[in-house]
This record gives sequence, C-alpha cells and structure tokens, in this order.
Amino acid sequence: MAITLENTIAALLKAKKYKTLRDILAATNEADIAALFDELPEENLPVLFRLMPKDLAADTFALMDADLQELLIKGFSDSELKEVLDELYLDDVADIVDEMPANVVKRILANSTPEKRRQINEILKYPEDSAGSLMTIEYISLRLKMTVKEAIKRIKRTISDKETIYTCYVTDDNRKLLGYVSVKNLLIADLDEKISDIMDTIPVWVHTHDDKEDVAKKMSKYDFATMAVVDDEMRLVGIITFDDAIDVMQEETTEDLERMAAIAPTEDGYFKTPDIIHAKNRIVWLLILMLSAAITGSILAKYEAAFSAVPILVSFIPMLMGTGGNCGAQSSTMIIRGMAVDDIKLSDFFKVLWTELRVSLMLSIALAVVNGARIVLMYKDTRLAAVISLAIVLIVIMSQVIGCTLPMLAKRLKLDPAVMASPLITTIVDAGSIMIYFTIATKFFAI
Amino acid sequence: MAITLENTIAALLKAKKYKTLRDILAATNEADIAALFDELPEENLPVLFRLMPKDLAADTFALMDADLQELLIKGFSDSELKEVLDELYLDDVADIVDEMPANVVKRILANSTPEKRRQINEILKYPEDSAGSLMTIEYISLRLKMTVKEAIKRIKRTISDKETIYTCYVTDDNRKLLGYVSVKNLLIADLDEKISDIMDTIPVWVHTHDDKEDVAKKMSKYDFATMAVVDDEMRLVGIITFDDAIDVMQEETTEDLERMAAIAPTEDGYFKTPDIIHAKNRIVWLLILMLSAAITGSILAKYEAAFSAVPILVSFIPMLMGTGGNCGAQSSTMIIRGMAVDDIKLSDFFKVLWTELRVSLMLSIALAVVNGARIVLMYKDTRLAAVISLAIVLIVIMSQVIGCTLPMLAKRLKLDPAVMASPLITTIVDAGSIMIYFTIATKFFAI
Repeated sequence: MAITLENTIAALLKAKKYKTLRDILAATNEADIAALFDELPEENLPVLFRLMPKDLAADTFALMDADLQELLIKGFSDSELKEVLDELYLDDVADIVDEMPANVVKRILANSTPEKRRQINEILKYPEDSAGSLMTIEYISLRLKMTVKEAIKRIKRTISDKETIYTCYVTDDNRKLLGYVSVKNLLIADLDEKISDIMDTIPVWVHTHDDKEDVAKKMSKYDFATMAVVDDEMRLVGIITFDDAIDVMQEETTEDLERMAAIAPTEDGYFKTPDIIHAKNRIVWLLILMLSAAITGSILAKYEAAFSAVPILVSFIPMLMGTGGNCGAQSSTMIIRGMAVDDIKLSDFFKVLWTELRVSLMLSIALAVVNGARIVLMYKDTRLAAVISLAIVLIVIMSQVIGCTLPMLAKRLKLDPAVMASPLITTIVDAGSIMIYFTIATKFFAI
Repeated sequence: MAITLENTIAALLKAKKYKTLRDILAATNEADIAALFDELPEENLPVLFRLMPKDLAADTFALMDADLQELLIKGFSDSELKEVLDELYLDDVADIVDEMPANVVKRILANSTPEKRRQINEILKYPEDSAGSLMTIEYISLRLKMTVKEAIKRIKRTISDKETIYTCYVTDDNRKLLGYVSVKNLLIADLDEKISDIMDTIPVWVHTHDDKEDVAKKMSKYDFATMAVVDDEMRLVGIITFDDAIDVMQEETTEDLERMAAIAPTEDGYFKTPDIIHAKNRIVWLLILMLSAAITGSILAKYEAAFSAVPILVSFIPMLMGTGGNCGAQSSTMIIRGMAVDDIKLSDFFKVLWTELRVSLMLSIALAVVNGARIVLMYKDTRLAAVISLAIVLIVIMSQVIGCTLPMLAKRLKLDPAVMASPLITTIVDAGSIMIYFTIATKFFAI
C-alpha cells in the first residue's frame, strides 16, 4: 500500500497537482506520512510538508527521522519553524533538540517562548537513559478540594485539542503526589463530587533518575498507561506514557540482540548506518574473538603428535566444537532472557546451575548415543566411538555450566549479561572442548 | 522489598494474625500480590486468597500463573468460583479457560451465566495467535445521534467500577465501525453536543484473523492505547488494549531469542519448565546441527594428506571456523532484527547484499592484516601468513553473504527468519570455511 501511495505522490508532484496532494495528505495518518517521507526523494519533502495542515505537519515532524527533521528545519523560515514548534509536545521538542547539531539547536531555542525554553532545558538536564529524559511535563494535575466540575474546567483550560489524557494526577500545594483520578471516573462522577472522594491511591511511581528500562518494565508489570515521575521530595515533575515505554522496550531488545551477536549497539536503522560504522561496530569483538580462537589453535597444536598418529581424530573437531558451542549458546540465551524478564534472579544461581546440570546430562547422553551409533556404523571402530561419545558427554556438561554461569557472573559484576552470549561463549567453550577431546583421545589411543 | 513482605506474611500466617493479613493484602497492588504468591508455599494461597476483598482477589487471580490458578480453582466451592468469575474480565476468563485441563474448564463454564458462556466460546473460537483471541469484547460503543449526555449515561450504565476505558467507539445500528471518541473529548464537550460532532475517524483497525504480532506492531506504530477489532463486514467485535500488546511483544521477543539460539520456544518461564521439556526443546536442533557438523568433518577428512604433510594447518581451524561463524552471526542478527522491526523489507535484498559485501570487505582486510602480522611474528613464515590471511578474506565475505541471504530466504519461504540465526549459520559457514581454507592451503603448499 505504502508503495502505491508513494508512486501516486511522485506522479502528482511531477504534474504539480498541489490541491490533490493537499487533500491526500490531510486524509492520511501522521505515522503513515512519516513512513512515506522516509521513502520519497529528500528534495520533495519541503513542498509536501508545506502542503499539510499545521497540526498534522507538526505531528508528522515529531515522528520523522532526525536527519530528515534537520533537513526540513534548515529550509524553514523563522516563522515556519516557530509554527511547527508551537504545535509540538515539549518532550518531542526536547528529543529533537537532543539530536540536532548546535546551530540548529540555537535556532530552535531562539524561536521558542522563554517559558518553553526553560522547560526544554529542564528535560535536557536529565541523563540520557533516565526516566526524566523520557517524561513529558504536560500532564493534568488536580487538587483534593476541587469538585469534578472545577476539575473539568481546569482540564478544558489547560490541555490542547489533540492531546490525549489517560490519567489525572492529584497533588497538594507543594506539588506532592497524592493520588490519581482516571478520566473515566471524572466522566461518570457527579459534577459536585469532590476529587478527594473519587481519587485512587497510586501503587507505584518512578524517580527522575530511575533507569528508563526499569520504568518500562514497571509500566508493563502494572499495566499502566501513564507512570508518574517524582523528584526526591515526592513532587510530581512529569509523566511517562505507554507509547514511550513501548519504544524503550523495542530499543532495549535491539540492543540486547546486537550485543548477543557481538555487535556494538547502534542508534540508527540498518540502512541509515554508514558502512564504516557498521564495520566499526563489528570489528572490535571480531578481533577479540579471533585472537582468543588463536589460543584454542595453540592448544590444538600441542596435540600434533596425537592427530599425526590418528589423523581421523581431526575430522571430529568441527562436530565437537560445534556441539559445545550450541549447548553453551542455548544455556546462555535461556539465562540472559530469564534475567531480562526478571524470571531468574542472581540469588537463583545454584538452582540454575543444578537445572542446567540435570538437563545437560540428559542431552549429552542422547547426543552421545546417536553419535556413537553413527561412528560404529560408519567406521566399525568401537574405540573411536567410545572416545567421541565420552568427549561429547563431558563437552556438553562443561558447555552448559559455562553457558549458565558467565551471564550471571556478568550481571553480578554489573556488566550487561547479553555480552556473554553465543559468540563469546562459543569461543571460550571451544578451548575447553579441544582439551577434553584430546585428553580423552590420547588416553584411549595411548598416543 | 518483595522478600521482606514475603517473610512478614509467612510469620503472620504462622501466628494466625488474619486481621493484619487482610489489611496488608487490601493495601497491596494486585500485580505485587501475584508476584508474592509465586514465592510463597502453595498451601498458603487458599487462606490468603480468601482474606482478600473480592475485586482485588479477582484482579490478582487474573495475573497469577496458570498452575496456581488451577490449584485455587480446585479448592474453590462452586459459589466461590462463581464470585471470582463474576469479577473477572471476559478476555481473562477466556485466557484461563484456555490454560486449564478439561475438568476445570467444565466447572468454570458451569458456573458462568449462559450469556458469559456464549461470549467465552466466541473468543475461544479464534485461532491462538489471532487478534480475535487477544481481544476483549467489553468495550464502549456509542451511536452517532447520541448527545454527550446520553453517551455518559450509557457509559455509567454499562461499565464496571474498576474498568478503565481509553476510547469509545462509534458504530451504526448494524455494529459497523464509524469512528471513535476519546474519553477526554467526551469529558470536555458540552453535554448537549452530538457524538457525530466530536467523533474522530479511525486511521487503522485490525481484523479478527490478523496475526497478533502484527496487531502489536500496528499499535506501537500508531501509539494507540486501544485497537478496534472488526470482522469481515467491518462490524466492531472487540478491542485490544495496549497492555496486551506489550505482553505479545515480550512473548515474541522471547520466542525469537529462543529460536535464534536453536531452542524450541516454551510457554512457561525457566523454572516452571520441567527438565524433560527443557531437554526436548533443545535436543532437536542439537541433533540436526551435530549431524550437519559431521558432514563438515567428512569434508575435513578429505584433506588428511594436507594436514599430515603440514600439521600446523590444523591449529588454524578453530580460528577460521570461529571467525566465519561470528561474521555470519553478526550479519544474520542485523538482518533478522531489521526485518522484525520492518526496517528491512524483502525487496531490499540486493541493497542488503551490497551493503554486507562492502562491510565484509572492510572487515576481512582488517582481520587478515592483524592475523597475518601475528603469524609472521610468531612463526616467521610468510607463506603460512599469506594462506591464512587469504582464507580469512574469503571466509569473512562468504559468511556475511550467507548470513544476510539465508534469513531473507527464510522469510521469502514464509518461515521464521529467526531460525536462520547463529547456530545454523555457523554450522553452514563451517563447511564453507574448511573448503576455502584447504583449497588455498593445498594450492600454496603444493600438497
């Protein structure tokens, strides 16, 4: 669908059918237009942007990629910039300011009201991964003594047309958080009821300096559409909405997956990242892992006498190293994910270790039997089968123990457990597999 | 915090301080009580459950694990079961029915009203991963001709005290979806305004048979707190709320991660899964990968003459296979994640291939230079260094090409791209690495 619309718009632009374009854009959702802008040639964006109604243009602007925002801002006159800024939510402006080069930031701040400028700076002062940086300060606050009628009047006066509210917060004269009233309860209450009578207490809130990942987890646990953000004196300073929490979760997932594949996390999408950054993000771990694997190679070189005497031993190296790596990857993934969703805690270490030991015993026996049978059938050599099968049992057990231990150790050391995923585990396990294999082989073949 | 409360409750139970327990529970949030129940000995649950106020008990019940729900239901009298069921939302009851053994389901349905029974069956008939199975049918529907006053009256009459609403949907006499009104707009509108005047159009909705993962993605893209679910005649049949969408995203992430580590996805958490299921989920891929690696071994065996003549060649096998595997894992992870977040489309195949080729060229040269230098320093053998460096360049390029191609091929074949992650890629790449390595080595060393 997006592709068809893209072609239509390109054709209409060429034919200068601006009236038709204006109608199409006005009838399209901002998220769809932002996606469309990503596909269209950059030179078309300023024209299309100016064809949109002001509020739609601002909503679309907030959803666009930083590089396209920059492109548009650079082409804006001051009054155009001011118009867009006036329509945007504060947290979106703060996000944009955060991404732009200094000269663009200057223009943005120069075109904001002093009050808005103060508020933007307020949000910008919180550390990047904190709840404070994620929150918006445009929330509804009510007082205990208000009647429902007064509350509705206040809401009508303070919020913009397009803003959606899910919850109103109740504070005292010092902005201390006392409770909340859902919009639904305001709606169905009698107009002369007191806010104090329909208010609910808040079971959980977050501090400005809390990690944004923890905030997202809490919102998901409690099914909150908005989360109250308080300062150290329990004063309400902002709210975080569920859509921002979802974005945080998505970003964290991408970051974890990249770490688990030994890639330094990126901010941008795949195609937005220049080649050199792709290479930079991958090279560090590749080098570390390559040099570690060279150590495994040196260990292997020590057994030259063994594989010179029985050359067939070499051909089982890929299978044994591979199986060890796979078992280690399975264990580490289960543990990393379990810790990420709070299913596994650090204090569960011995419980985890014991589980993995039991599971590895089952797996190793099954794998050893299948592989032993294959070797007896193919090579008619029971001694060889015994060596390989015994090696598999020990390698699988070792791999799963290492695979479950290292992520928990990383967490204990306050590192991200995700770095202890397949690539690193595999490399570590490889060295152990080689040692186990050749120790057994040299014993059995009396080399 | 949870641990302290856990100990306090255990102590109070022992001392039979039921009044105190009742007060503590009543003051605690349902999500926290559900987490607490997971930690406490099972025999304590029925007592604690009966100490809670009815609506809190029902909310807690909906959040508990299926095995604890089953335990409680089995201990309930029919009237107790009826009380809990009456307080639950329909989609929660449907979820519970879905998880319970047949005899428990029978009791649940027997204790529901005929109307509720019909509605539960309605939800249950949708396929497991569909929007229909995720939705709740308890939504607010308004008519075009209603005034705001009438709409509020209808809402007061139809919704329960504890239910939260974010959006009201507007339908015609045949339940056809026409638009929506946010609760905020109802609140700030004049009482005699018509719904048709304050209604907004809906930019996007989903069908009952749509995949629930796509629904979650759409809700995240459009920042919707609720998504309308329609049937083939565009009649509104239910809504999906953001909290369920977040749960779907979390489940899908866990599933993807497990698939990427060659584990069959599980429903339950790590500790809830019995050993034998852990083993079953892991053994299938381990066997497949082990037997595939045996093929790599057979290829290696063919070069016996080469490594018998130059035994040092063997010691570079772990490094070359490892580097190939890591490069393949990096590429496949980037592509799998890129496709999961719709950043990369199938039509981008050649763009992706070209990017990976360029990046792999940079990476392979860097790795070859570092490794070549190491070998010259350690072994004073430039021919060996040349062989290994050339092998690295070709192996890295091959691995990244395979690493980006296979996930896209899997998607093209309508398989889950996540199965084409590290373990499988590594195993496939290993065979290629061995062939490249020994082809070059036999040429250079004229073996």
